[in-house]
Amino acid sequence: VVRVAVLPHREPWADAAVAAAGSVPSAVEQADALVWVGESPAGLDAARRAGRSLRWIQLPAAGVDGYLDLLDPAVRWTSMKGIYGAVVAEHALALALAGFRRLHEAVGRRGWDAPVGRTLHGARAVVLGAGSIGSALVPLLTALGSEVTVLRRGDEPVDGAALTTTLDRRFAVLAHADLVVVALALTPQTEGVIGGAELAALPAGAWLVNVGRGRHVDTPALVDALQAGRLGGAALDVTDPEPLPDGHPLWSLPNCIVTPHVASPTSMVEASMAARVRSNLLRFASGQPLDGEVDVELGY
Amino acid sequence: VVRVAVLPHREPWADAAVAAAGSVPSAVEQADALVWVGESPAGLDAARRAGRSLRWIQLPAAGVDGYLDLLDPAVRWTSMKGIYGAVVAEHALALALAGFRRLHEAVGRRGWDAPVGRTLHGARAVVLGAGSIGSALVPLLTALGSEVTVLRRGDEPVDGAALTTTLDRRFAVLAHADLVVVALALTPQTEGVIGGAELAALPAGAWLVNVGRGRHVDTPALVDALQAGRLGGAALDVTDPEPLPDGHPLWSLPNCIVTPHVASPTSMVEASMAARVRSNLLRFASGQPLDGEVDVELGY
Repeated sequence: VVRVAVLPHREPWADAAVAAAGSVPSAVEQADALVWVGESPAGLDAARRAGRSLRWIQLPAAGVDGYLDLLDPAVRWTSMKGIYGAVVAEHALALALAGFRRLHEAVGRRGWDAPVGRTLHGARAVVLGAGSIGSALVPLLTALGSEVTVLRRGDEPVDGAALTTTLDRRFAVLAHADLVVVALALTPQTEGVIGGAELAALPAGAWLVNVGRGRHVDTPALVDALQAGRLGGAALDVTDPEPLPDGHPLWSLPNCIVTPHVASPTSMVEASMAARVRSNLLRFASGQPLDGEVDVELGY
Repeated sequence: VVRVAVLPHREPWADAAVAAAGSVPSAVEQADALVWVGESPAGLDAARRAGRSLRWIQLPAAGVDGYLDLLDPAVRWTSMKGIYGAVVAEHALALALAGFRRLHEAVGRRGWDAPVGRTLHGARAVVLGAGSIGSALVPLLTALGSEVTVLRRGDEPVDGAALTTTLDRRFAVLAHADLVVVALALTPQTEGVIGGAELAALPAGAWLVNVGRGRHVDTPALVDALQAGRLGGAALDVTDPEPLPDGHPLWSLPNCIVTPHVASPTSMVEASMAARVRSNLLRFASGQPLDGEVDVELGY
């Protein structure tokens, strides 16, 4: 029987998953496994130190960039990667379509006039990242008639993409992109992957959507590009800094849509997270590989 | 050789289609066929009367509700039905996602707080109409994980829909709808199909999207429902009256998104319209059935 601590607070979906797996709730000092449902890396660090018998820690998000310093290989670490793909891809599509169809200009308008938008049909879309978000987004874009190129660390082809190539070849691809969607994990290799040079390489009128992490994009360079009006616009669910402070220039740019990191709120993924925890508890108990295991070297 | 008039003005895409089909531009008085590219039924009526040798008239839109009085069976009438499906379905999806993801509330906000939206994953979507728009929309919604019911005149099943049934059974279906999309042709049978009783039947929080015609929806009843706040909201590309006049209550409702009939601007469909005209000219010349032939009895 696996003894499991759920910290730093009671969380009904996690408690239910523990019960459904036949595991036993436990104080962290006696626990074999920790299901961490909080947001504070410092809090996790304290729990990790108190949990001397821990052999496995389940993290609450898909991206573990906030926890990298804690990922010691003495225990196994799993994230929620894979859980969020469909709903985050949906949010990315909503943002792309809002920009292409100029819904940000229609909202708040009070008269029967509006600029004509564009269609994703026949558009060239570039998706950065081939994790669960990118993999879910590609078929949505191709269903709308876009030609999709995927940029990723390796060049293993992604189903449905017209071309899959590596991130280091991004300039040649971005030069013909109507839409760019960032859906990468944040690592030292991907931080700032969309900088001033990349933005300058985009055709006039292109849209940038970010559902990865704010630090994938060079924010001051993006502000400059949006102020210059050469891009169609940017739609961001993640920002740098985050939360985006009041008075930040991104708030007042008419060609920028900001949503406050709501692509995958808990309400949308709770059932999937509970299923991941339950299934991993069963797998842990029987010595099977865990879902969402973090590669500590790669950082995701 | 087919003699073709393009009226009421020169239209480069139509002229190119006539040339590509090997047809001969002609004054309407001598023409076998008329490609009407204008918006005024009165202008079309005058051209129709002048064109005594006309045997076929190609209309410029998918919906012919504005021309019903003119559709005399002495000539053949074709519309652009089928041309607009993909791009109008895309606009409907953009509107639905904007509503579900509450982008209309994010736009214009200047601080890091926003209500959490909902996802189409697992949502119950109802599509009214199984023409080219509805048929294109169903697979997009199912790709996002919605369960789709189609309501149409007959009950021939639509590919991908969990259920296809007839419009007269709409109350039972609407009572469980998270999203309702109107994509019908406007006929006496479909006018006002979403009235006060239908809106009252919807669950709290449901969204209504209209990409059909404004008169499919009872506008005063919709305004009441939106003001009452029981619906999630409405997103309308078509209105009644249209254009929606300045000062109309729909303009100022925070849970209503209005786009000014821009789901399928000419720029998005010009190539497809030219292909329809060219292909129909070739078909007409060789006595084959025409694409988009209007059923004068049905009115579409």
